[in-house]
Amino acid sequence: MKELTTRELKERLAELQGTEVSLRGWIRNHRKQKNMGFIDFYDGMCFKNPQVVYDQSIAGFEAIQGLRVGAAVRVTGKVVPSYKDPETPEIQASEITLEGDCPEDYPLQPKKHSLEFLREIAYLRPRTRLFQAVFRVRSVAAMAIHTYFQDRGYVYVHTPLITGNDAEGAGNTFTVTTLAPGQQADPSEDFFGKPTSLAVTGQLEGETFAMAFSKIYTFGPTFRAENSNTKTHAAEFWMIEPEIAFCDLEELMDIEEDFLKEIVRTVLAKCPDELAFLDRFSGGGLIDKLEALLRSTCARITHEEAITILRKAMENGTEFKFEPQYGGDTAKEHEKYLTEEYFHSPVFVYDWPKEIKAFYMYQNDDGKTVSAVDLLVPGAGELMGGSQREDRYEKLVSRMDELGISKEEMYWYVNLRKFGGCTHAGFGMGFERLLIYLTGVENIRDVIPYARTPQNCEF
Amino acid sequence: MKELTTRELKERLAELQGTEVSLRGWIRNHRKQKNMGFIDFYDGMCFKNPQVVYDQSIAGFEAIQGLRVGAAVRVTGKVVPSYKDPETPEIQASEITLEGDCPEDYPLQPKKHSLEFLREIAYLRPRTRLFQAVFRVRSVAAMAIHTYFQDRGYVYVHTPLITGNDAEGAGNTFTVTTLAPGQQADPSEDFFGKPTSLAVTGQLEGETFAMAFSKIYTFGPTFRAENSNTKTHAAEFWMIEPEIAFCDLEELMDIEEDFLKEIVRTVLAKCPDELAFLDRFSGGGLIDKLEALLRSTCARITHEEAITILRKAMENGTEFKFEPQYGGDTAKEHEKYLTEEYFHSPVFVYDWPKEIKAFYMYQNDDGKTVSAVDLLVPGAGELMGGSQREDRYEKLVSRMDELGISKEEMYWYVNLRKFGGCTHAGFGMGFERLLIYLTGVENIRDVIPYARTPQNCEF
Repeated sequence: MKELTTRELKERLAELQGTEVSLRGWIRNHRKQKNMGFIDFYDGMCFKNPQVVYDQSIAGFEAIQGLRVGAAVRVTGKVVPSYKDPETPEIQASEITLEGDCPEDYPLQPKKHSLEFLREIAYLRPRTRLFQAVFRVRSVAAMAIHTYFQDRGYVYVHTPLITGNDAEGAGNTFTVTTLAPGQQADPSEDFFGKPTSLAVTGQLEGETFAMAFSKIYTFGPTFRAENSNTKTHAAEFWMIEPEIAFCDLEELMDIEEDFLKEIVRTVLAKCPDELAFLDRFSGGGLIDKLEALLRSTCARITHEEAITILRKAMENGTEFKFEPQYGGDTAKEHEKYLTEEYFHSPVFVYDWPKEIKAFYMYQNDDGKTVSAVDLLVPGAGELMGGSQREDRYEKLVSRMDELGISKEEMYWYVNLRKFGGCTHAGFGMGFERLLIYLTGVENIRDVIPYARTPQNCEF
Repeated sequence: MKELTTRELKERLAELQGTEVSLRGWIRNHRKQKNMGFIDFYDGMCFKNPQVVYDQSIAGFEAIQGLRVGAAVRVTGKVVPSYKDPETPEIQASEITLEGDCPEDYPLQPKKHSLEFLREIAYLRPRTRLFQAVFRVRSVAAMAIHTYFQDRGYVYVHTPLITGNDAEGAGNTFTVTTLAPGQQADPSEDFFGKPTSLAVTGQLEGETFAMAFSKIYTFGPTFRAENSNTKTHAAEFWMIEPEIAFCDLEELMDIEEDFLKEIVRTVLAKCPDELAFLDRFSGGGLIDKLEALLRSTCARITHEEAITILRKAMENGTEFKFEPQYGGDTAKEHEKYLTEEYFHSPVFVYDWPKEIKAFYMYQNDDGKTVSAVDLLVPGAGELMGGSQREDRYEKLVSRMDELGISKEEMYWYVNLRKFGGCTHAGFGMGFERLLIYLTGVENIRDVIPYARTPQNCEF
């Protein structure tokens, strides 16, 4: 008799009815009655867990009744119709053997644990229902992202993590070194012969590949040494950065919207049980929100229009901590108002004041704004940030000069504008932000396997 | 008229014959005759580049004849039958406009450049035929890996890159810090409040997820601060590390073989033009080697049997620099002999001497060996290294004690053996090693977008 996973069992449930199967996994819960017992069994391959039923006729009935939560077991038995739910497989066990025991003081007991407690035992929390849902969605969403781009001919590029570039994010990067702590040494004695740090973006290298393959994307880890302890910041997170040649800002928004909808569509289709659980966990409305996205068209407004909407809201009594300013940045509360109160949907805000955006963005004719676009979504704020890139050599270089960014060090980036440059655009999406949006789980620490935050680098 | 990519053009070539199309991309080569011209056109979306033909009837004939190699252009014209090859699209241009110019001294001229020279202009080399092939194969292989695991229910896990663990690889890790260079400070003042480094493996964290989801894999960057300048070492590379619960060494080898064949099958199917080019580039035999793998069964021998084969070869006149020793490690030359001379195929070598392998490997009953397995392949040496893991608490802890590895610091790893532990196994595969095997390109610097090696961290 072939051993099955719970995934195969669920997929072939009708066909397997009445047959003998064998499964290996763990005990999530064990309810005992005098003459029988019920085991909530899981192997993590399928969110819908089978129930294992046994009675006194089983060999070693008493030892089996002693099996504890968390133990690894092998179960053999007949697939029978379930009383509680026709979609939940039920096994009438003829044999249950212990593979690996689990002590009485196992921290994960079948009761409600706080998220804070589960973070402390992060190496065990993937065994809970909540994290089985979150990390399966994480995996399925990652695959949906790869599939989206690969189906459309994009090349997946692994941009470097260790970098000698210092163009962006100076001051909040991690230093990478092989020099001993406190060692006074010339940077030339370091591993790479110069100071290096962990990359905060792969975009610039990504552009070099877009100028060769037209459509590329990155999907890899990114690092920020920001000393901020918020629900949405981690020192290490994963980011997706597509870059597209012969693409302007308008087309970029089309791609972003199509991309987001396709990811949502795939996760809804592949993780219905996980999402149903997460919907309940997060207080309801999650699946409605995702399904509504698929039916809607994302609003597109300029930064100026956004400020006008926000200022009108203020005049009409909405209270903001920070006053929305033409030419200024928006705050979380403003993004929340726009997506959750005003549009009730994701919204693109484009044409941002040039002073608050990066040097490589396309300078609009008004002399004041750049062709940048942020996609704001309900519940997770800024999900994607993108722009058409400045492809005019002189404009790029003079902006770099203004900002004190060395065009000599970045010669290769600048040269892209000399050697067959073209209109191009790209965006970045924080993968954990997407997961917060998709799962309804609010804290970035709970959508990443092992979070790295200030003063915290456990496991 | 909709704009097409060369990928769409090739896929729909028959249907598009005789119709007007528009393309945007770059000039790889431009041959001019008195009354007409031929442009090798590419946009990087398809390895098979269309040829663009124009004659004197085109508007701006003289300006078009002045278009230089490397320039970005937009081409409009009719799809016509090709004289040279029915599969190569040909466009009879009615309009060619310049999108972005390229100077006369553009480094990438249509002639043979050395790999060394191309490494120096790594930001331009993806535009060459060779690197269009290599990096498309890299992308397709990455997707094939994801597809393999996701189709089989594995969960993709992002294990942390910044780690406080010091269990493995001490001495050849990169330090991650926010302290200023040379700053004398207590580690408690550092970002994470303790010394941290870049991960050399995600396996241990991967095991925590395998004990929850049964089947998981990682695919992410890994770092080694090894000061070695060889063709197969880089300081930053990508690795795949699957981990499978309820799996022993024999089943692990089955998975490794099936996995490798599936990747090879997918790349052969999806990149025929790229592989044909790489086959020629690497001197022939590449496609034969890959197709032979699909038909063959990988040999499986113990380490002891491998040494016996190697010593017999020595007796029969094969010269090795290092004498193969029972109980000792094998050298590159030995791996080469086994795969290329003796078996002419990949070969699994298992049951390795425990002294030269890691602490977490399953200790065999003989007291001398562990259930480790290396997969050796022709042309790339060790491609995968795996093992059944030691799941017996006492055995694991006593081995850690012997090797001076702190079981207190690694409590979470050790605890996996207490909390429902089970037979499990996993392997690691260096992604660049796989690419060397798949592309026939010999140097790791040429299969990774921007290589990081000692004294080298450019772009």
